[in-house]
Amino acid sequence: MKPRHFLSSLDWSSEELADLAVTALNYKAQGRGRLHEAPDLAGQVLGLLFFNPSVRTRVSCESAMARLGGSATALAAGTDTWRFEERDGVVMDGNTQEHVRELAPVLSGLCDAVGIRKAEMMSGGGSSEAAGASWEELSSDSFLNAFARHSEVPVINLESNAFHPCQGLADMATLRELLGEPRGEKYVLTWAWHPKALPVATPHSQLLAAADSGMRITLLRPEGYSLAPEVVEQARERAESAGGCLEESSDQEDAISGARIICAKSWGRLDAYGQPPERTRPADELRQDWIVNAEKMALTNAARFMHCLPIRRNVIATDEVLDSPSCAVALQATNRLWSAAAVLGRLLG
Amino acid sequence: MKPRHFLSSLDWSSEELADLAVTALNYKAQGRGRLHEAPDLAGQVLGLLFFNPSVRTRVSCESAMARLGGSATALAAGTDTWRFEERDGVVMDGNTQEHVRELAPVLSGLCDAVGIRKAEMMSGGGSSEAAGASWEELSSDSFLNAFARHSEVPVINLESNAFHPCQGLADMATLRELLGEPRGEKYVLTWAWHPKALPVATPHSQLLAAADSGMRITLLRPEGYSLAPEVVEQARERAESAGGCLEESSDQEDAISGARIICAKSWGRLDAYGQPPERTRPADELRQDWIVNAEKMALTNAARFMHCLPIRRNVIATDEVLDSPSCAVALQATNRLWSAAAVLGRLLG
Amino acid sequence: MKPRHFLSSLDWSSEELADLAVTALNYKAQGRGRLHEAPDLAGQVLGLLFFNPSVRTRVSCESAMARLGGSATALAAGTDTWRFEERDGVVMDGNTQEHVRELAPVLSGLCDAVGIRKAEMMSGGGSSEAAGASWEELSSDSFLNAFARHSEVPVINLESNAFHPCQGLADMATLRELLGEPRGEKYVLTWAWHPKALPVATPHSQLLAAADSGMRITLLRPEGYSLAPEVVEQARERAESAGGCLEESSDQEDAISGARIICAKSWGRLDAYGQPPERTRPADELRQDWIVNAEKMALTNAARFMHCLPIRRNVIATDEVLDSPSCAVALQATNRLWSAAAVLGRLLG
Repeated sequence: MKPRHFLSSLDWSSEELADLAVTALNYKAQGRGRLHEAPDLAGQVLGLLFFNPSVRTRVSCESAMARLGGSATALAAGTDTWRFEERDGVVMDGNTQEHVRELAPVLSGLCDAVGIRKAEMMSGGGSSEAAGASWEELSSDSFLNAFARHSEVPVINLESNAFHPCQGLADMATLRELLGEPRGEKYVLTWAWHPKALPVATPHSQLLAAADSGMRITLLRPEGYSLAPEVVEQARERAESAGGCLEESSDQEDAISGARIICAKSWGRLDAYGQPPERTRPADELRQDWIVNAEKMALTNAARFMHCLPIRRNVIATDEVLDSPSCAVALQATNRLWSAAAVLGRLLG
Repeated sequence: MKPRHFLSSLDWSSEELADLAVTALNYKAQGRGRLHEAPDLAGQVLGLLFFNPSVRTRVSCESAMARLGGSATALAAGTDTWRFEERDGVVMDGNTQEHVRELAPVLSGLCDAVGIRKAEMMSGGGSSEAAGASWEELSSDSFLNAFARHSEVPVINLESNAFHPCQGLADMATLRELLGEPRGEKYVLTWAWHPKALPVATPHSQLLAAADSGMRITLLRPEGYSLAPEVVEQARERAESAGGCLEESSDQEDAISGARIICAKSWGRLDAYGQPPERTRPADELRQDWIVNAEKMALTNAARFMHCLPIRRNVIATDEVLDSPSCAVALQATNRLWSAAAVLGRLLG
Repeated sequence: MKPRHFLSSLDWSSEELADLAVTALNYKAQGRGRLHEAPDLAGQVLGLLFFNPSVRTRVSCESAMARLGGSATALAAGTDTWRFEERDGVVMDGNTQEHVRELAPVLSGLCDAVGIRKAEMMSGGGSSEAAGASWEELSSDSFLNAFARHSEVPVINLESNAFHPCQGLADMATLRELLGEPRGEKYVLTWAWHPKALPVATPHSQLLAAADSGMRITLLRPEGYSLAPEVVEQARERAESAGGCLEESSDQEDAISGARIICAKSWGRLDAYGQPPERTRPADELRQDWIVNAEKMALTNAARFMHCLPIRRNVIATDEVLDSPSCAVALQATNRLWSAAAVLGRLLG
């Protein structure tokens, strides 16, 4: 029997995800230390494989396992490990030493679940051999999906090229915590300027989180900066099924007006994937307009400010926004812990 | 009182090792989560010191401690730590900052057992200062043995220049799991071509595992590629004591015929230690003949295929072999967990 | 309510610190495995953020958490994480990606306590951006203190520029273990030659440990090598309050004579901070005189030898001293575990 994975929120129904978000908030209400009204994962081990640096994701997973009575081990792919091959049929006489066809059954034999972060930078110059590939190539998340196919235990996506479902679930819990019932409330996912082009996985999952919460969503971005069409379309469908809607806009004043949530995020153009950094840096003329500041927040309906972190202060949002009572970024990041616990308890309990 | 270490299977009797293998399989039968019919290592900490990358070894040790109720911490020597000195009487005004005479009592005061992986590459160009040394120099495993002498807690060899006893024990458990009673069955440790010369520690311990299991062993390798004579001799003696035998051969067809186990591994010539890579790479003319393929497996007595992993597909063995039901490499790697648990329970329980 | 931190022993009274030292020795007496007469930290997680390499500090904290039933996770800042900003009001369009104003609430939301090691080298050439700064700039420990201000959970200083209070507390426990009642006994903190200038945080905390223990202290060093005047003054006041005294000297024979404790440590001149290495290396003419050897130990009142480790043999002290029964360095390092457990139990229990 194949295990159930947590690779994308699209593999789970809006109702299942809402249940996980509620569980996360229930765990949070239990406070620090061992969670007693939760599955007991004593002796269970979560293996974490990071191809990219991580603070929140790693610590939230480790901390979640500890609170459920289990433990976790984090491997830095490349330094702690061999180099992995994912293509079938290859004669491995080059620079890869281990095939995912062996790695997946082995790690899943040693651990009770495996989390994987493997996300390529948009532009060349990163450490990964895949940097320089197009969005069409990267969006298939070939390593992650090959691992999941060959794994005997649940696999959790800790951020791939296409999705970051743990962030998405934390956002769902946060929306519920901030608003009570988020259904029908106005939510804006606003693009922000950033000195380099960033991947789209996180905004994809954030958009889906608002959709699965049934919110009235505006995807606010400059022309040319939309997200992957297939993801936007699925978000629209899920939003509508859950009682909300989704529109795209580049009119900031109109979009922000009356919003209950402003979630900021920067990302690069899809056609920037695989281009050299000097060609993918967002245009400087967008910088002045596309920052979240107090003036914009004043147009909202007392909106709370969200961001996945890390955030560049006075670039994505001003100090004034981040230091105001409307700012929910720390609460949102802390919900990574409780939503990770909800997922792990669900998959392993 | 000096603690008992697990530095080489040669320090343990064949009977003791067989007992550990049986314990490992008993643990495996208990399934995932806390092992209840096992020592309780609550509050006990295994320190792991890695001078080389590791996936299976590290995760299997950490996972084993978790299942016994304890925990582990892994240190990457060189990045996480200072540089260590092992020579006595040195004036330490150079590039080493801590002597094993301090390190060993300190780590053994902070932890309840210490695992160490310190294995030099065959050829220069590796990261270790000892790369470039001869087999005669390296085979003494001076750091590991100095640490063990000065340690107040059990030390576990996680792969040295001479031995990899955790792999050996996992192989003993695997042979028992695959064959029931391995005594008297035909076992072939076959050399395979590989693009660079690899160390001999693992095949040493694998040979000893088959010997301690009382099997009829053929060490199958091209001329000039035997293992360390003193190890082969001890393997022969232990095999004979346990009801088996050991012969060396370079005749593949004869060796493989009727085998119940084909265990593949590549290694370099002993005289390659310390030589530059271009002089140690196995000859290309061996490549075609010294790969395990379906034709060879067809000559066996329905043999199971073993390899310690990581394995280069279509170099050491073909996809056809690795994807066939006879392939036991994932099962073998998973047994690293249960055999580590057996050793740790024995040393710390 | 602000949490209580362990940033410097100066924030705690001599009596509180002595209580912690007694608790540490009580824990030590309970032996290996789970501490039963201690707070139960099940499900609690200590986050460890290292900007510098660590063996003793990291393993002692991890091991302490395990013995109290909790767990720890260690992050290597820079490789595992983003680059952090600590200055207020900065437009973060440069090479820092996360502000301590976000990092602190987030990590303190994911963990139950956070330990931080951030200490700059004396001389340029280190990996930190702050290398090259003066003692006046570094002594404020701006990152650590900013983190503590914004943290919602206790923060433990694992060595900053100014202090290393975990080492200090371990020394207090060690002095008590070695001497019974250390009050009024003669203690010498002696400078030693070392091939490069080392930071002053550790000798600061060691001096304070002897002061809080009420000992008769001699700070023995060559002219020009005193510690920070404000720390020496506070050590003097605390020593006198606790029944001891403090004097500075460069007369080794007089200072050592009759001592019960010789604690050796090298450090650089305060005015060496921020200077290039070739200008900060202690003068070679000090080398012969400023090493602890058997002749010096013979002048003492059967003194025990202490050092925080790692120690360069035959540079700081001779083999003869380190291999003699008077040497207490391993015992002292092991007390890092028990004193960490005392602090963690106090802050989290």
